[in-house]
Amino acid sequence: MVNENIPHKNAYQFNAIGRVHSCYQEKFGIPRQPGLVPEARASIEILSPYDRDEAFRGLESVSHIWLVFVFHQAMREQWRPTVRPPRLGGNQRIGVFATRSNFRPNPIGLSLVTLETVERRENGLWLDVRGADLLQGTPIIDIKPYLPYADSVEGADAGIANTPPESMPVAFSEMAQRQLLALDACVYPGAEGLIRDSLSYDPRPAYRKDEEAIRIYGCRFYDLNIRWQVVDGSIEVVSVERD
Amino acid sequence: MVNENIPHKNAYQFNAIGRVHSCYQEKFGIPRQPGLVPEARASIEILSPYDRDEAFRGLESVSHIWLVFVFHQAMREQWRPTVRPPRLGGNQRIGVFATRSNFRPNPIGLSLVTLETVERRENGLWLDVRGADLLQGTPIIDIKPYLPYADSVEGADAGIANTPPESMPVAFSEMAQRQLLALDACVYPGAEGLIRDSLSYDPRPAYRKDEEAIRIYGCRFYDLNIRWQVVDGSIEVVSVERD
Repeated sequence: MVNENIPHKNAYQFNAIGRVHSCYQEKFGIPRQPGLVPEARASIEILSPYDRDEAFRGLESVSHIWLVFVFHQAMREQWRPTVRPPRLGGNQRIGVFATRSNFRPNPIGLSLVTLETVERRENGLWLDVRGADLLQGTPIIDIKPYLPYADSVEGADAGIANTPPESMPVAFSEMAQRQLLALDACVYPGAEGLIRDSLSYDPRPAYRKDEEAIRIYGCRFYDLNIRWQVVDGSIEVVSVERD
Repeated sequence: MVNENIPHKNAYQFNAIGRVHSCYQEKFGIPRQPGLVPEARASIEILSPYDRDEAFRGLESVSHIWLVFVFHQAMREQWRPTVRPPRLGGNQRIGVFATRSNFRPNPIGLSLVTLETVERRENGLWLDVRGADLLQGTPIIDIKPYLPYADSVEGADAGIANTPPESMPVAFSEMAQRQLLALDACVYPGAEGLIRDSLSYDPRPAYRKDEEAIRIYGCRFYDLNIRWQVVDGSIEVVSVERD
């Protein structure tokens, strides 16, 4: 019998160096790539023994960082050689390595985010970022500065994914507008932009998009329950309710 | 006693999905970032059970890919909270997370390279890339398409590393020129550019750069031994010899 805990020679073990505290409390509603929602805020709690100020010295002068993370909710799943990217309408299969899907052999994610602050607080060392596409609790396994000269290419061809996904108009019902106004801006910074931009990329799974019936969907951002529907090709936020 | 083989709850294990066959046979001489040496070629052998054609279907329409890899030679080393980047002359320490140093808590590397071909050959499934900064034998743990809209930022500030490292002029001795001309271009494609561009970034460790005495250095690209020296602020390739 094979002891699964003994790493074989092609196996590498990494420890989480940080843990994400995100506005996104569940997968549904998270933008499919980073950078699409500027108000998507996350804080990274640096874990011991990596939470040493000097290990981050100099990072404060960097505007953007790479987060290398684990799709922890995909860890238990089998990888699939092909996936159906939402961009192809969900009915065409391409190779998993030709996509950024999380059902990869090694469920490692890569996100370029804006670094806001690196701060020693009473409860540890924290990095605040924006433009994240990260689920609450995501384990971070590396943080690197973004180097424009090495990490970007002019005129690269990304095949099916050369442009951001299409976005839809988003409107707020009168009730949702009143509920938004009543929120404490310190607790829910940029909530309107967060909700508008996140929903504008239409989180519905592809197989739902052709449905005729109007259906109410729910997303959880912070401790807010966002209820929304699609009417005549645009998204209406019905309500924004706290727990 | 703690059994080191039992992963604790913050540990994640990944398997190599590929193995690099690189023009760079040893660390010395490898450019410090990818993309600097267009003639730096590497082939990635996709390992079983990941070597399935359909897992890469569609990748051929992508011009650039991310390689997520393991700095395997750094695996056994302790991580250091601070490092001395060559760019700061090697005498100033900054946090390891503010750099791309390989002495990180999790020795994971990230390289953006040009994808040349995805090909089924007699001995397996291979990806050929250019602009690599990878050591022979490097384990690849993920391959992702480069998405310009999500993976690049206009006007990002990388602090100390906003521009490529400075480069030096490189000249070939008469002997080196003759030896280069005698090489089979199919076996050593772009050898002149590979040698010139790789050496132009001055592989010497910072503490050697102030030495007065002329010293002959050696690099191994493919099975070529490249001998070179620094004379009056420029690099001279002395000889290019096969094993």
